[in-house]
Amino acid sequence: MSGLKPVREVAIIGIGITKFGEHWNLGLKELAVQAGVKAVDSAGISGEDIQLIVGGNMSGGLFTGQEHGSALLADYLGMNPTPAIRTEGACSSGGLALRTGYMAVASGMHDFVAVGGVEKMTDVYGPQATTALAGAMDYETEAYFGATFPGIYALIARRHMHKYGTTRRQLSMVAVKNHENGFHNPYAQYRRKITVEDVEKSAMVADPLRLLDCSPITDGAATVILAPADIAKKHTDKPIYIKASAQASDTLSLFARQDITTLGATVHAVKEAYRQAKLSSKDIDFAEVHDCFTIAEICAYEDLGFTKKGNGGKLIEQGETALGGRIPVNTSGGLKSKGHPVGATGIAQIIELVTQLNGEAGKRQVKNANIGLAHNVGGSGATVTVHILSRDR
Amino acid sequence: MSGLKPVREVAIIGIGITKFGEHWNLGLKELAVQAGVKAVDSAGISGEDIQLIVGGNMSGGLFTGQEHGSALLADYLGMNPTPAIRTEGACSSGGLALRTGYMAVASGMHDFVAVGGVEKMTDVYGPQATTALAGAMDYETEAYFGATFPGIYALIARRHMHKYGTTRRQLSMVAVKNHENGFHNPYAQYRRKITVEDVEKSAMVADPLRLLDCSPITDGAATVILAPADIAKKHTDKPIYIKASAQASDTLSLFARQDITTLGATVHAVKEAYRQAKLSSKDIDFAEVHDCFTIAEICAYEDLGFTKKGNGGKLIEQGETALGGRIPVNTSGGLKSKGHPVGATGIAQIIELVTQLNGEAGKRQVKNANIGLAHNVGGSGATVTVHILSRDR
Repeated sequence: MSGLKPVREVAIIGIGITKFGEHWNLGLKELAVQAGVKAVDSAGISGEDIQLIVGGNMSGGLFTGQEHGSALLADYLGMNPTPAIRTEGACSSGGLALRTGYMAVASGMHDFVAVGGVEKMTDVYGPQATTALAGAMDYETEAYFGATFPGIYALIARRHMHKYGTTRRQLSMVAVKNHENGFHNPYAQYRRKITVEDVEKSAMVADPLRLLDCSPITDGAATVILAPADIAKKHTDKPIYIKASAQASDTLSLFARQDITTLGATVHAVKEAYRQAKLSSKDIDFAEVHDCFTIAEICAYEDLGFTKKGNGGKLIEQGETALGGRIPVNTSGGLKSKGHPVGATGIAQIIELVTQLNGEAGKRQVKNANIGLAHNVGGSGATVTVHILSRDR
Repeated sequence: MSGLKPVREVAIIGIGITKFGEHWNLGLKELAVQAGVKAVDSAGISGEDIQLIVGGNMSGGLFTGQEHGSALLADYLGMNPTPAIRTEGACSSGGLALRTGYMAVASGMHDFVAVGGVEKMTDVYGPQATTALAGAMDYETEAYFGATFPGIYALIARRHMHKYGTTRRQLSMVAVKNHENGFHNPYAQYRRKITVEDVEKSAMVADPLRLLDCSPITDGAATVILAPADIAKKHTDKPIYIKASAQASDTLSLFARQDITTLGATVHAVKEAYRQAKLSSKDIDFAEVHDCFTIAEICAYEDLGFTKKGNGGKLIEQGETALGGRIPVNTSGGLKSKGHPVGATGIAQIIELVTQLNGEAGKRQVKNANIGLAHNVGGSGATVTVHILSRDR
């Protein structure tokens, strides 16, 4: 009795995503329904085949007043009495939804499971959005004292620069690369290329992080359809297999960590993911990582094992994570350019992986994309999920 | 490939619960930690054995500003890097946590899983609590127009009285019975007996529902420890087996239902639960049902199959659901007397079932308690979970 080994293997047989951006005419449920209907269509099944809905959503309550969002989605998709579960782990709510859906299929309890993520963030004004997002921190030890996420990640950036010589220019190059990629993604919020100078002239938010170091406030939804691997090929020519579904926790408070330049939960989760998939970081062809701020992508390179600790800045500078580099990262545009509807982000990353693995990414296609990794972070790293997807079972 | 059959059977090997009530000196995380530590102790394992935490919480965001509650719990329990998932389905968040934890064990991914529920409701003033709870409704079609949950359930009560002749006295008798039971429950919020007259003289809230028809605002937490059935007896002499874990959805809005006196999701979920357990309503020895209002318990009698539709009022009047009756209901005191910390309620119901099945319920013990049922409702019935527990595997 060892645990940590799924009894049934699981595949992704369909995907659906909305345009990411400011959707003044669409609410929480309209966004979720749009992505859900697309995903069910693309899986070649009917809504009646779905046996469970799992929906990631960070804070319907604080952003819109609406809790109970997954049942609302079942309702507006016309899918009653199909059961629906909401998962939440701040900005990793989507990753948690996928892990929950994965276990639901692996357990034998459900065959077809719709796993979605959604956030409607633009119905509140700026400070209120910042307050809602602060719910991802340890409220009593961070938010009460005025901490904001740009401030938290600025501390991480300063320490990384001090300890490892990471430069302002290297931070900027992350944003430039991600906007370069997002330019080719029709679902991205900001489809425009930017320069290092643009980043460095943009408004200061929390020194050293400037506006163009920060992911935006975004509305959007994304859905994938899961099925047991054994029957996936009956429904699609191109099933994508989930080879690992791993998760770890860390302190919510930054002050409680031994080393703030490392996200311990990323290190733990990716180790477990590589163990499940029987792979190492060298086997990963490309990745979607959680670049809520430019410094977060640099830390992720290191914590995921794409380079050694402290070398993340050089990795971006040497072009290794650009399209055509050794390990392309955030070909979707990442959170920076594609946008960051917090509850949807984890699923949007999976959709980019599936699109790349199926060779359908157009001008941002990674050559020989066989194995992809998705890295989704809640808060400043208190929750991290890592999924590894493969074209081959 | 049929689905809906767990690959591994699952048992409960430990329980822990806080006193329910107004905890002015304890916050969200202190309550959750208290219940979690008790449960781990009672399971005879150590915190390091836990491989996953699943925590039900309806609205940490609107009640306390704190989202990301499950990772916070892992943190304050000293359990990093153990993964933690929050589930939410309004007042059925606890039931969803149990279903999610159940699938995590059944899937083979995790052996020991801590499943908890928590709500800290008294940090906000009354109207703000009502607003938070309204997040369980379809916000745009109900809450915006001034609907409150007492108002919604008052509509159900009026219709039930009109259609089936249910009486004011029968409603009162539900509250009287539950306070009778809660008097003997050391964890209950209101340990005092009340009379039919007390109920009928209490303040009018939403005609015909009076104050003593309504469950209260409560702080509290509850946790159970799950393990694969195959190894349960290594850890406890008295494992309790989960024979069914079922869930269904219905419209959030009351106006969208054909018959507001029936909770369709209860009917669907219990049918699936009886199928999974290979049992019928006649096999159930006792039950914890979701009596958020007295009328809800009467509807539950009918929808769960304990009596025919329309006969729920007579069931309470004939004493059949009292301790010593044919099918004792809410021996814990129910939501009415024990209290209703919304995210914790679904797990607290499970703890009463385990306590009864183990013969440890003292003066409220049901004789020959072999099979118990728990019924947890989100909103006015948009999400319902039904679990069936047994002493025998």
